[in-house]
Amino acid sequence: MTKPNIIKTGANPFQTLEVEVFDEYGEKLTKQIACERPLTVMLNWKEIVTLMTLGSRPEALVLGYLKNQSFLSDPEAIDSVIIDWETHSAAVITKEDTSELDEALKKKTVTSGCGQGTMYGNVMKQLDNYQVPQTEIKQSQIYTALEALTHYNDTYKKAGAVHGCAVCKDDQVLSFVEDVGRHNAVDTLAGEMWLNKESGEDKIFYTTGRLTSEMVIKVAQMGIPVLLSRSGVTQMGLDLAQKFGITTIARAKGLRFQVFTGADKIEFDVKGNA
Amino acid sequence: MTKPNIIKTGANPFQTLEVEVFDEYGEKLTKQIACERPLTVMLNWKEIVTLMTLGSRPEALVLGYLKNQSFLSDPEAIDSVIIDWETHSAAVITKEDTSELDEALKKKTVTSGCGQGTMYGNVMKQLDNYQVPQTEIKQSQIYTALEALTHYNDTYKKAGAVHGCAVCKDDQVLSFVEDVGRHNAVDTLAGEMWLNKESGEDKIFYTTGRLTSEMVIKVAQMGIPVLLSRSGVTQMGLDLAQKFGITTIARAKGLRFQVFTGADKIEFDVKGNA
Repeated sequence: MTKPNIIKTGANPFQTLEVEVFDEYGEKLTKQIACERPLTVMLNWKEIVTLMTLGSRPEALVLGYLKNQSFLSDPEAIDSVIIDWETHSAAVITKEDTSELDEALKKKTVTSGCGQGTMYGNVMKQLDNYQVPQTEIKQSQIYTALEALTHYNDTYKKAGAVHGCAVCKDDQVLSFVEDVGRHNAVDTLAGEMWLNKESGEDKIFYTTGRLTSEMVIKVAQMGIPVLLSRSGVTQMGLDLAQKFGITTIARAKGLRFQVFTGADKIEFDVKGNA
Repeated sequence: MTKPNIIKTGANPFQTLEVEVFDEYGEKLTKQIACERPLTVMLNWKEIVTLMTLGSRPEALVLGYLKNQSFLSDPEAIDSVIIDWETHSAAVITKEDTSELDEALKKKTVTSGCGQGTMYGNVMKQLDNYQVPQTEIKQSQIYTALEALTHYNDTYKKAGAVHGCAVCKDDQVLSFVEDVGRHNAVDTLAGEMWLNKESGEDKIFYTTGRLTSEMVIKVAQMGIPVLLSRSGVTQMGLDLAQKFGITTIARAKGLRFQVFTGADKIEFDVKGNA
């Protein structure tokens, strides 16, 4: 399969920055903060959106965003992605016809998810009656994934103020990414899977963030049947997870978790005594 | 001053919902989750956006959103706000000319903040060279505010998955609101202050959420000089707080906090031994 040309100009951005702060004793301390920078996305020279991002894997973020917003459908149709940190812009050039963009741009929804807050109307239409593949999962697998994940989230450990997302398979973390907006993190992983034509069927999706409607929709778009979150669930997140048949495990920390949907597809093989 | 007519049709929505979950022992438990519902905002019958919200104070949310996105400038110019939970719509009718909306809608930025992720180009233009009023604050005031705030966030205590924001003055919490998107929470408080023509000068703004660029911009728009967060700060949030002259206190929990900007305007009168 043909991969798009990825062209990057300008220095690769830092992930964290050292700043001086004063604590409650009035003492000066040095702390790290997460970087945040604009990246204006252009599709065939038409400006689509400006994302605020940590910028760790911008090409995957931009492609994942455009794919999740249904601006792109075929990875083979992408000619090149040009990331320029000097002008804070990302230009995606395709062989695909994108002349109907204006229609798609008309209807937007500002969602309650962290980060990228727009969801275009056609996305919801496409997902009507959609179902993810139905797969079983062992509780011990959940624990090995959670254990493996503790070795990641460097930026969060250093600076906080970021969300982490990962795609896991069995006891492996296949890909992990952090961003100032958790939707950027999801889109980055979605972009990678899409480019590599990876199926979601045998994967687990992990996020440190809350499972609001848009998060669940994006996991459904990736075709991943198991959603694991360190945080909680909202009503629409839960409704959509049920609709799509996604096994939803939230409040997952250490040995603790709560299964909100799909408990019948989980084998409780250790019963919290891993 | 003339207040707009607030018309509400349909039942007031619930804030939390009881659901059955399974814990790590495979035991069935009953848990509360935060509600999340769409609210489509129309300004003079033109559809602007669909917000995903808990929906506790929709009229303030919608007005705050429109004001913060610079669609509205004068509270006196608002004729009525119609909230209809049957059709999940909020119609704002003004006496103001809003015929230039299309221009404003063209340029949008998807931000890294939780929740409402769009910021219109003209907002940033307006805030160029903007400064909040410069006021002093005592450390003991920060502690009394934090102490007072512990008696709020009911939805979070019950269900999690929401952010809380508050406007405080001295040791009083003047207004507190929770939402599935923290930007909805900020906009709700902004809408209230704007309608009541309240000045931000003597206020403290509190949020449980991270201080990303958009959060800081919204606090600047409210003219509040002190920003207090339970969470961390991003690089652009910090840059903007410096630019606007906002005293930024993050990681504030109990007696602990970190001052990121404006430490010279804080009187350390208790030095962490409150």
